[in-house]
Amino acid sequence: MLVVKKFGGSSVADKERIFNVANIVTEEYRKGNDVVVVLSAMGKTTNNLIAMAEDINPKAPKREMDMLLATGEQVSVALLAMALHSMGIPSISLNAFQVAMHTTSTYSNAKFKRIDSERIMNELDQRKIVIVTGFQGINKNDDLTTLGRGGSDTTAVALAAALHADECEIYTDVEGVYTADPRVVPDSRKLKEITYDEMLELATLGAKVLHNRSVELAKKFGVQLVVRSSLVEAEGTVVLEEAKMESMLVSGVAVDKNAARIAIVGVKDEPGVAFKIFNMLAKANINVDIILQGIGRDGTKDISFTVPEDQLDDALAVLDENKGRFDAQKIEHDAGVAKLSIVGAGMQTHPGVAAGMFEALYNVGVNIRMIGTSEIRVTILINEDDCDKAMRAVHAKFFS
Amino acid sequence: MLVVKKFGGSSVADKERIFNVANIVTEEYRKGNDVVVVLSAMGKTTNNLIAMAEDINPKAPKREMDMLLATGEQVSVALLAMALHSMGIPSISLNAFQVAMHTTSTYSNAKFKRIDSERIMNELDQRKIVIVTGFQGINKNDDLTTLGRGGSDTTAVALAAALHADECEIYTDVEGVYTADPRVVPDSRKLKEITYDEMLELATLGAKVLHNRSVELAKKFGVQLVVRSSLVEAEGTVVLEEAKMESMLVSGVAVDKNAARIAIVGVKDEPGVAFKIFNMLAKANINVDIILQGIGRDGTKDISFTVPEDQLDDALAVLDENKGRFDAQKIEHDAGVAKLSIVGAGMQTHPGVAAGMFEALYNVGVNIRMIGTSEIRVTILINEDDCDKAMRAVHAKFFS
Repeated sequence: MLVVKKFGGSSVADKERIFNVANIVTEEYRKGNDVVVVLSAMGKTTNNLIAMAEDINPKAPKREMDMLLATGEQVSVALLAMALHSMGIPSISLNAFQVAMHTTSTYSNAKFKRIDSERIMNELDQRKIVIVTGFQGINKNDDLTTLGRGGSDTTAVALAAALHADECEIYTDVEGVYTADPRVVPDSRKLKEITYDEMLELATLGAKVLHNRSVELAKKFGVQLVVRSSLVEAEGTVVLEEAKMESMLVSGVAVDKNAARIAIVGVKDEPGVAFKIFNMLAKANINVDIILQGIGRDGTKDISFTVPEDQLDDALAVLDENKGRFDAQKIEHDAGVAKLSIVGAGMQTHPGVAAGMFEALYNVGVNIRMIGTSEIRVTILINEDDCDKAMRAVHAKFFS
Repeated sequence: MLVVKKFGGSSVADKERIFNVANIVTEEYRKGNDVVVVLSAMGKTTNNLIAMAEDINPKAPKREMDMLLATGEQVSVALLAMALHSMGIPSISLNAFQVAMHTTSTYSNAKFKRIDSERIMNELDQRKIVIVTGFQGINKNDDLTTLGRGGSDTTAVALAAALHADECEIYTDVEGVYTADPRVVPDSRKLKEITYDEMLELATLGAKVLHNRSVELAKKFGVQLVVRSSLVEAEGTVVLEEAKMESMLVSGVAVDKNAARIAIVGVKDEPGVAFKIFNMLAKANINVDIILQGIGRDGTKDISFTVPEDQLDDALAVLDENKGRFDAQKIEHDAGVAKLSIVGAGMQTHPGVAAGMFEALYNVGVNIRMIGTSEIRVTILINEDDCDKAMRAVHAKFFS
């Protein structure tokens, strides 16, 4: 059996944690399995490197930023290899060049194109644990690229796909995927299984357990993911195509506080206006989520939508620059909002789930400002202050 | 004109020093020259990485050590590129893979085999300053190697040779090569020129301005070296094949306190004994310097030699393990000694230089314990306590 195990930055933050990882992977190795380990940079390394760069040049070229950041994972993988050697376990660290992990050239947000399996397979054949730098790749010029935040999850899944691994385990600080954030909802519970689609909705919506790109990739290549703790020995959550158990009505409640609402008030009610607006936001790489368009009145209409709060300034700047093109009466915005979502494959066949959510919120006096839905998800926009109360109420509705 | 400029760790230790380097290389670039910059890791980075590794595994595999250490220079080159970009100067950082700098596989002490010039030339053609990681290379498996201490000097010279550079400038904390260490001999003076051979003797003998491997390489490929300060704008010292000015009798006085003396007393006076002893020391990678063999007496003889002080324990261990093979009465050692050398191409044609040195030492009461010579060098072993006094006396003899 070939297993890929990924550990995040806090799991390799210091000597003690590095040896903890060494013990976990050694246990798997001693079962006779082939083990590939993917690591992030230690603790706050990446943030420290970013701070150094910003001190020197706040607008540092992304190519050089990736050159800088790629060193973080290289340090982690070398240190883990040293730890394993001290325990007598054969191992070797490999960076993006050595593997080689080919990506597109979009620095700081590259995508995998192809991963060579030869070198890794060669090392595995010699019964070594192979430790690979997460988060990074090389482009066609042999320049280093990085995958953006959460990229190490993507590296793990991409490697698992390329190597036809039997399982891809993502080790985190939590024991698995919960029905809601346990810090906010104390009686939330760990899920044994969840489908890719459910996980994708949860990941996109702010459950920070897995990065959505990694879930998409896992779904695409049918990589079986397991989310589990690097601190506690406990069964994690399996992410797979179709839950083997009867799928639950709702599998999770997620909150995303990184949301802001923009309202474009009084644009002309004529074809093409929405296209113009969202096309220019897309070109500026701004992720628009829930969109609401009111019914026209007096020849004008209002368009509201949400963007990530950290993209609000960029979005407003784009709208301001181009305001001549859509002729609005005014543009309003509000950063004090949050998105609350329920996700569940069971929703497709059980009507009334959304209504149940709205009822729970009504009972605790939470005002719903916008609503968006997909086949297996209902998302609402609420005031950020209502977040915890709303989450508990909705969780209680579906899980007690 | 194509110029290679190398800056050591202290020259890129912080933001201010990095911008200082950026200014120096920009000045060259603005003259219309092609500029290749070689950097070491920032300040104490390499030592910090070594400490991290030793904390995890004191016997860390050298391959993983090199993987770890290579990150240090990658950080420096990326940051300098960012600094240059902030000044509007086109630049690009390249690591050992990207260049590519091919070396042997001897981890932590690799030697250059071949340096590809295509990528660098390409970037230079686009009028970019090219910034290359010093100290590192890749072997035939694409694994990272390092060149050992002082390796960045070697990288600079090797690059200058591969690119047929017109000049290779080594920037340091001092203004050039001095007739003696200015901290010990206040009236020592900076040399305008020095030959490769003289520099080589000085480098080997403890003048820490240039690493001897880099001087050897420069001599081999006829690379014109300049040693100069990154702090003060001043003419440096040119290292070249043959000094254009009349060569001085003595060009420098150097001291090496990292010396220890070993005496093997009463070995059998028969052929092959010296071979046995020095062969086994060579196999253990111990650098033996001055060797003295007394005249035999009663069928036995004494053999004395010097080793670097930090290899004394290893040398004694090797001798102790193998003492059955050469049958000595006893082995003595003394770490409280130092080597004092005078170097000068002029010595070849001027007899009496050694005698002048001995006279100066006699006048200040310094006892000479061993003597070794080459065509352009006289080295003596003295007590470490006599070092500064001896250096001043010898310097005064030849330079006042």
